Amino acid sequence: MNAYPLLDRIEHPADLRQLERKDLAQLADELRSFLLDSVSKTGGHLSSNLGTVELTIALHYVFNTPADRIVWDVGHQTYGHKILTGRRKAMSTLRLYQGISGFPRRCESEYDTFGTAHSSTSISAALGMAIAAQRSGEARKAIAVIGDGAMSAGMAFEALNNAGVADSDVLVILNDNEMSISPPVGALNKHLSRLLSGRIFNGARDIGKRFLEQLPPPVFEFARRTEEHVKGMMMPGTLFEEFGFRYFGPIDGHDLDALVPMLQNLRDLKGPLFLHVITRKGQGYKLAENDPILYHGVAKFDQTEGIATGAGKAAGKLTFTQVFGDWLCDMAKADPKLMAITPAMREGSGLVRFEQEHPDRYFDVGIAEQHALTFAAGLACEGAKPVVAIYSTFLQRAYDQLIHDIALQNLPVMLAIDRGGLVGADGATHHGAFDLSFLACIPNMVIMAPADEDECRKMLTTAYRHDGPTAVRYPRGSGTGVVPDAALTTLPIGKAERRRDGKRVALLAFGTLLSAALKAGEALDASVVNMRFIKPLDLDMLRDVAANHELLVTLEENAVIGGAGSEVSRALEEMGIAIPHMRLGLPDRFVDHGDQGQLLTEIGLTPEQIIERVRARLATIAAIV
Amino acid sequence: MNAYPLLDRIEHPADLRQLERKDLAQLADELRSFLLDSVSKTGGHLSSNLGTVELTIALHYVFNTPADRIVWDVGHQTYGHKILTGRRKAMSTLRLYQGISGFPRRCESEYDTFGTAHSSTSISAALGMAIAAQRSGEARKAIAVIGDGAMSAGMAFEALNNAGVADSDVLVILNDNEMSISPPVGALNKHLSRLLSGRIFNGARDIGKRFLEQLPPPVFEFARRTEEHVKGMMMPGTLFEEFGFRYFGPIDGHDLDALVPMLQNLRDLKGPLFLHVITRKGQGYKLAENDPILYHGVAKFDQTEGIATGAGKAAGKLTFTQVFGDWLCDMAKADPKLMAITPAMREGSGLVRFEQEHPDRYFDVGIAEQHALTFAAGLACEGAKPVVAIYSTFLQRAYDQLIHDIALQNLPVMLAIDRGGLVGADGATHHGAFDLSFLACIPNMVIMAPADEDECRKMLTTAYRHDGPTAVRYPRGSGTGVVPDAALTTLPIGKAERRRDGKRVALLAFGTLLSAALKAGEALDASVVNMRFIKPLDLDMLRDVAANHELLVTLEENAVIGGAGSEVSRALEEMGIAIPHMRLGLPDRFVDHGDQGQLLTEIGLTPEQIIERVRARLATIAAIV
Repeated sequence: MNAYPLLDRIEHPADLRQLERKDLAQLADELRSFLLDSVSKTGGHLSSNLGTVELTIALHYVFNTPADRIVWDVGHQTYGHKILTGRRKAMSTLRLYQGISGFPRRCESEYDTFGTAHSSTSISAALGMAIAAQRSGEARKAIAVIGDGAMSAGMAFEALNNAGVADSDVLVILNDNEMSISPPVGALNKHLSRLLSGRIFNGARDIGKRFLEQLPPPVFEFARRTEEHVKGMMMPGTLFEEFGFRYFGPIDGHDLDALVPMLQNLRDLKGPLFLHVITRKGQGYKLAENDPILYHGVAKFDQTEGIATGAGKAAGKLTFTQVFGDWLCDMAKADPKLMAITPAMREGSGLVRFEQEHPDRYFDVGIAEQHALTFAAGLACEGAKPVVAIYSTFLQRAYDQLIHDIALQNLPVMLAIDRGGLVGADGATHHGAFDLSFLACIPNMVIMAPADEDECRKMLTTAYRHDGPTAVRYPRGSGTGVVPDAALTTLPIGKAERRRDGKRVALLAFGTLLSAALKAGEALDASVVNMRFIKPLDLDMLRDVAANHELLVTLEENAVIGGAGSEVSRALEEMGIAIPHMRLGLPDRFVDHGDQGQLLTEIGLTPEQIIERVRARLATIAAIV
Repeated sequence: MNAYPLLDRIEHPADLRQLERKDLAQLADELRSFLLDSVSKTGGHLSSNLGTVELTIALHYVFNTPADRIVWDVGHQTYGHKILTGRRKAMSTLRLYQGISGFPRRCESEYDTFGTAHSSTSISAALGMAIAAQRSGEARKAIAVIGDGAMSAGMAFEALNNAGVADSDVLVILNDNEMSISPPVGALNKHLSRLLSGRIFNGARDIGKRFLEQLPPPVFEFARRTEEHVKGMMMPGTLFEEFGFRYFGPIDGHDLDALVPMLQNLRDLKGPLFLHVITRKGQGYKLAENDPILYHGVAKFDQTEGIATGAGKAAGKLTFTQVFGDWLCDMAKADPKLMAITPAMREGSGLVRFEQEHPDRYFDVGIAEQHALTFAAGLACEGAKPVVAIYSTFLQRAYDQLIHDIALQNLPVMLAIDRGGLVGADGATHHGAFDLSFLACIPNMVIMAPADEDECRKMLTTAYRHDGPTAVRYPRGSGTGVVPDAALTTLPIGKAERRRDGKRVALLAFGTLLSAALKAGEALDASVVNMRFIKPLDLDMLRDVAANHELLVTLEENAVIGGAGSEVSRALEEMGIAIPHMRLGLPDRFVDHGDQGQLLTEIGLTPEQIIERVRARLATIAAIV
């Protein structure tokens, strides 16, 4: 028996376009079933992909892909797209080492027109594509598919602001599922909710017309001159029409009989178009519909049983995220001035309990990293103590705000940077590969990386109590498993900790690579230092180890360019110390997805590889000596 | 005779608040006259300050500053504010070395509640202040004054999106002068224009009421349920009301009889408020009114004659900005695929002629750096050749887009980075101090810094023709004065140029510090290398000079942390070369404003200082040897 009779016939969208329109609903069922089967085996994003099954089918059915360009914002909703564009078999390798990515990638398929993962880039990219096509006389379409959460980022606004007045054919499809990963926040979302409630007026347009016709002449004239606003009143979508788009919708994004004809109509229109589609995350799989956040990103699970919650998780080691979340609640109890800010990452950043316990001090600002940091700066100006919980890779979005609004004013804003270093299956777009580099050059910053969970908690307290900008940078997942001491204690700023005394080589570890360094230290009989602070560095310690060793080896899960090792080099130079220094860290290339262990192996940072690399280097030094 | 009888009585806003309301117009005249007199002697921002005289007076008159917080977006319009808040005498030192800043600074005055300079931060900061005040039970007000140009940045949208739903007392004053530095662009501006044309309907609110009352019942019910949109129709401001603000205006920002009562009313209201004020840049000084862009930022000039244009300027040396502008026009003629993008810096980035010659390939995206880069990425995907002209310090706003959308996809987007290094009078917020650091760690980037104007042109061509992301980083102002060769020729990527053969020391210069290096090289009889490329470095050259010298000295106008010198250290380490290395560059602190020469002296980068520092270092090496 063939479980996927229609899906089996589709290798590429051209095959899909051979189907009868009436068959699409069945195809959607098959695709959804295949998706659920596939993701339950590999893990990955689930809710968002179940929610875009019909939209994906309709887009490839109506538009001439890949000549027409679809840019999927965030891109974690593209599994259906991947399945329909030649990668169905490859889905078994999804997010695995050397398998296909969980996001669109230009190098993976010509149907992946633009690599995404960070949110809110799609309209900018699609506008660029549309204008390039226009200038070169090509009649291709450019389509951005963007969620309501992603729409809250300033970047999407910047792009709307431009696209609405550009004379080019860009279609923005708002995939409105009333949630980002965290629940939606902000005024835009309220606006969208009003548009939804406006659906009951869909038939009211005629009323609107009659409404105008019967007005007395001066009022009619008034109404005529405010045509835009009247239109806004008659149909929803005012906000987007103010930006210069023609607004269509909202329509049901799971109804192919609504989607397909609508897209066919839009295909033939010119200028900036905006289609508002309502979908439901997790659609078609009851467990995910009921808890789309739990099913947002999943590990392997049993389709029938669903994801096991509760007991199983509690038994494992604490993640650094949990260490932060617990610390935050404890510190908030100790200090009423603490305020916590997240750019739409309540779950990922460990703020669920904090929000419950301190709703008045919890600020989810939406996907708005820039605002998050400057808002924190404003809080700090008035004596509040803001803690911004942010992923390393998303902090890149707020770099100027960190320099210009926080560090330049030396304000006590604390960054709790999660996902520093390699994150694993999410890949190159999500690794926290650069933070130590882009932070180290900023004056006034104090930057720490904990070696284990207990040190993480101490560093958080240290950062919080420091009167200036600070960053504590910790990795995804768990560490050695040490249970943090409950007290809120601080570490001396700029002081490293010697963990092992050895000979010839001193291994200087920043962050959780300390474990590998300790193992390597045993094998090499090397000294091992837990450096703790990237800035300020412990100069006394450096002077000391330099005086008694032949080689210094720095270890960090950050780019070797400009990171902690780089600062060690500079410190040695400034002290006039010449000693061989070997920097181990992330290479000068983007590292793909895979298991964190596999990735560490690929780049040579397992204990065994460290031992081997250090021995090889020692051999060259011996040769010189 | 006393030219400023009222102004003389005001040392602080408390004095201002003693004046009769009827006297404020005269005070405005005096303040405007003082401003013009002062700025014509020191140079500085003029148009924006003339445009905000009445608003500044009204704000300090009505609100209880400094207890109430005013956050001035961008902050170049705060001269009047400075004069009224204890800094009138200090205005003679404006933007001079160790004088007062041209922007608000928290360290300068308690009335400067938030340091600004980069645009669009004010609403975020004011919201933070408002919420902090609310949480600690203080009844202070938080006011953001933001221009229509600044409102186009995504960050302002992110803040509006939050502020509109936060239950806090924040007043946003839109200072709408229908221009940023460059002419306004985008849909938002169109919206604002409609609001202005809507002014004729200010008296129409009553009509609106009657309008509703006479409707037949079902239509009335319809209208009632779409209350928001009806309100939008009755008064302008829909867009801002959609964000949850109560919208007031537009009112004439030069009419104190409108401003003062309006602000008094707003002072007593709660929740998010939005006041739309119309002003004119240059107001009260005809020459500036007629050419606000020319009078945006001025050098010293004669008030009566105005700024001398034409002949005088042409006689001087070309600036790097002009070299870029000319190159861009020439390259655009040679290659129809070239597209130029500016985030609202047409004049500053040298794009005036390009826009005239190639309007269809010119894109001013507004103050929207994030969108600018991803839009460029979209263009590049389709075979266009985008060149983004951007200031170093503003590139910080688009850091994630550079990493995630351009470098990760290895797209041929070219950055022409102006204002790299110290910029002078604009100070810490505007120095291009960090770009080499935050760029160097990004994989796939090719990064160059020209030593002179001719090399700048060659590097621009080299970058343009490279199939991948590139950056050419050049300073504010002019260089040695060499006239660029007209040909469009390239340089070999990653190759340095030896300029002088000497002994013991090799000076490795990145960018325009080559001139100082050559002078120092003569005095020291040192070798001098024009490094040209920060990435990739010329490893052969490094190996070569390391083999024949006792000391390498790198010179760059960038932070010594993580910049070009840092990369030289790393390259030497990787090659296993141990040689003393001295890094000269910007120190690990924010450098204030002043003449570029004074600043270079302060940080020890004049030729004489370089000579001295190198000799001192050589002495220690000799001592060791």
